[in-house]
Amino acid sequence: MPFIALEGIEGAGKSTQLTFIQQLLQSAGKNVVVTREPGGTLLGEQIRELLLSPRLESMSADTELLLMFAARVEHVQQVILPALAAGKWILCDRFTSASYAYQGGGRKLPLSRIATLESWALNGLRPDLILLFDVPARLGLQRAATRCQQLDRFEQEKIDFFDRVRMTYLSLAKRYPAQYCLIDSSLPLLKVQEAIQKVMIAFLEVNQDV
Amino acid sequence: MPFIALEGIEGAGKSTQLTFIQQLLQSAGKNVVVTREPGGTLLGEQIRELLLSPRLESMSADTELLLMFAARVEHVQQVILPALAAGKWILCDRFTSASYAYQGGGRKLPLSRIATLESWALNGLRPDLILLFDVPARLGLQRAATRCQQLDRFEQEKIDFFDRVRMTYLSLAKRYPAQYCLIDSSLPLLKVQEAIQKVMIAFLEVNQDV
Repeated sequence: MPFIALEGIEGAGKSTQLTFIQQLLQSAGKNVVVTREPGGTLLGEQIRELLLSPRLESMSADTELLLMFAARVEHVQQVILPALAAGKWILCDRFTSASYAYQGGGRKLPLSRIATLESWALNGLRPDLILLFDVPARLGLQRAATRCQQLDRFEQEKIDFFDRVRMTYLSLAKRYPAQYCLIDSSLPLLKVQEAIQKVMIAFLEVNQDV
Repeated sequence: MPFIALEGIEGAGKSTQLTFIQQLLQSAGKNVVVTREPGGTLLGEQIRELLLSPRLESMSADTELLLMFAARVEHVQQVILPALAAGKWILCDRFTSASYAYQGGGRKLPLSRIATLESWALNGLRPDLILLFDVPARLGLQRAATRCQQLDRFEQEKIDFFDRVRMTYLSLAKRYPAQYCLIDSSLPLLKVQEAIQKVMIAFLEVNQDV
């Protein structure tokens, strides 16, 4: 069954579009499981709390990456693989690409080090389609700031952190054009959703039998 | 500076002996940092809670191992390496050997998979001396049971789990005789402490200048 991931920096509009895509798929008669990372399981949500807690600001980049993969492995084994096996579609808010972008680009861990851990943990599992919502870091952060919550450990980072995250996302999209689909998220909402609809109609057509 | 780890199954008497060894080292004028795994840092203690929580019984072995290493990396970078650099001795209740014994022997993960993660995470850091407190699983569990607390996620395992943990510890000790020192922990307390004292006097002599 198809596995779709949504990626992008803070304020790229993933959450809004997640609901839109879920509705598109359900209208097409698909049985969709919507989930997110880090999180997606009881344990994963507890790891998410640790990862986002501003109190733990001194956490090393290696620790952060190991925690991300701990949550991911649990999520894959408890949620994603069973759902795919049961004939459901997966729509996931962030997956491994986010580790390359945030811990690689953002925290400057070598991408090859992340690749080693990915291959250790996931046995080759990758999304069939990755929708990358791209927005300049400054605009994304402005949008995210209007949410008015307390900033989490990632949101407290400076703009050049998010610039590096964005650039790593873009370079992944360029390197793996068969999986990534780049969506310009700085456009007005309706334009963005038009673009999504176009991509999803094409994807549904290729996957009409599943 | 020397890095000493204590290993052994539940009820092997590590905690009692930890204090005894700490006193031996302090009498010899050493500046000792006593710490434990999983744990040893604020984040590590929170990961420890997740790892021991009986509510999370369905956690996969891979997830468990990744969480152990997340706590360990944090512990190494925040506590162990800075203390060693500052000229202190480290006395640690469990370290990487426990991952081989518990997740390898106990949970049946291939030891080579654990070795890959160890090499990814620790850059070759291993204790200079590992005191392995050996006790038959049945006796260890009987002793641990008298503590009368609620059993944690590991303590809830059956006896053959702890038999496998013990056997893996013993095979590591056989494979790395230069690091491991086997102590028969089924003997009466005074005999065990005599054995420890003998080992520690020899170790202090070799490390008298540090």
